[in-house]
Amino acid sequence: MEKITSVKNPLIARLRALKGAKARRETGLFLVEGETMLMEALCSGLMPHALLSEEETALAARFPEARLVTRGVLEAVCDTKTPQGMCAAFELPGPWSLENAPDALVALDGVQDPGNVGTIWRTADAAGFGGLLLGAGCADPYSPKVQRAAMGSGFRLPAIAAEPLAEALQTLRARGWKVAASALDGADFYARPPLGGRFILVIGSEAHGISDAVRAQADALVKLPMRGKAESLNAAVAAGIMMYEMMRER
Amino acid sequence: MEKITSVKNPLIARLRALKGAKARRETGLFLVEGETMLMEALCSGLMPHALLSEEETALAARFPEARLVTRGVLEAVCDTKTPQGMCAAFELPGPWSLENAPDALVALDGVQDPGNVGTIWRTADAAGFGGLLLGAGCADPYSPKVQRAAMGSGFRLPAIAAEPLAEALQTLRARGWKVAASALDGADFYARPPLGGRFILVIGSEAHGISDAVRAQADALVKLPMRGKAESLNAAVAAGIMMYEMMRER
Repeated sequence: MEKITSVKNPLIARLRALKGAKARRETGLFLVEGETMLMEALCSGLMPHALLSEEETALAARFPEARLVTRGVLEAVCDTKTPQGMCAAFELPGPWSLENAPDALVALDGVQDPGNVGTIWRTADAAGFGGLLLGAGCADPYSPKVQRAAMGSGFRLPAIAAEPLAEALQTLRARGWKVAASALDGADFYARPPLGGRFILVIGSEAHGISDAVRAQADALVKLPMRGKAESLNAAVAAGIMMYEMMRER
Repeated sequence: MEKITSVKNPLIARLRALKGAKARRETGLFLVEGETMLMEALCSGLMPHALLSEEETALAARFPEARLVTRGVLEAVCDTKTPQGMCAAFELPGPWSLENAPDALVALDGVQDPGNVGTIWRTADAAGFGGLLLGAGCADPYSPKVQRAAMGSGFRLPAIAAEPLAEALQTLRARGWKVAASALDGADFYARPPLGGRFILVIGSEAHGISDAVRAQADALVKLPMRGKAESLNAAVAAGIMMYEMMRER
């Protein structure tokens, strides 16, 4: 197997560029780091475009695209400080359209923290939601931090950029989806009106909540009850509680 | 107001030492950083033992313990890289005993991630739980990272070190508490047996789940249903979903 030792190698330079959202958009590729996440991506049916490995592992040997690299090269390509032996570039999941949207959706209206976006993605998968709508201002869905927090659900549950989000909500509402948006001035989540079989749960930004345009598209504004003296919940925790409850009552 | 310019000042040296769990235990003090968190601590009835401020603010002027400091001194004392103008040392909340335990408790069996411990603390407060039991191996509850994630709930909701956790559970069970422990091999959480008015929800470590000794004290082993292909949930999200559901059915 060919071994790459220089960070100036053209392939390595292309892979390093994938740290930037612009390069990911232009190439349609994103980087997956570590054997565990790599296996998740492969098991989800994604195919690697390039695969770098520090050692000649059985996994690496399965792919003609695999290249051996030095530790220094691996560290230069990866986002994690001490990458676990291998990484690979995969094609971004194909553009999913509003035309064939799943029944149960989560929409993020400017959720900025990559950990929150990834954790909501993971929980949406576990709760049985069909997809994610990402409005403007959200953390880049194919950044390494988001994908690490998504723990493989980012490879399985489709996400679509929906900018502006309010327009996407309007389109889906016209086709029968109901929108419940989380807001600090919302009514009791547990007393929300029935939303039927097609619904979208909207989670707003950590600092500012949902935008006015999105608010105007909400069939219901909802808030989890606060029994103690806490004023709010972490966005991913609040989303998790609501998602599990909505899928349970479905 | 006296201005301290040297990191070698004895008070500054004592406050810097509070970064370590050992010094926090020995002095009974912990550090709160930034005006927002400081206000939360003050509004929760905690009194500052020492308060450092970069500027002569109205808040600082209220406390005879306040000292002006240079930016360099503040940065040396604080855990955050760019601290927001002030910090203060507060007394650790008094030892809370199993003798007068609240009815609804969350117990953490080796939850290591400070963000998870803090987020569970915050959610427990919002859901209406009365206190936290912290078993061995948990992140130090009064570390800055835990308190930042707890968003002020760490000042309000009492936590107690319960080591070994299994013994504390046994003691409380003998007095009428029922224990539901989250485990990957648990039965459907939504079909759990009724636990009555006094209960403890146990959340295990991110990597290994609950220990065998704790498992032996569980009246019910529970797991949230996984509808998609995700294998597990983030510990703080799973805890949040269960806590809200348990308090709702109470």
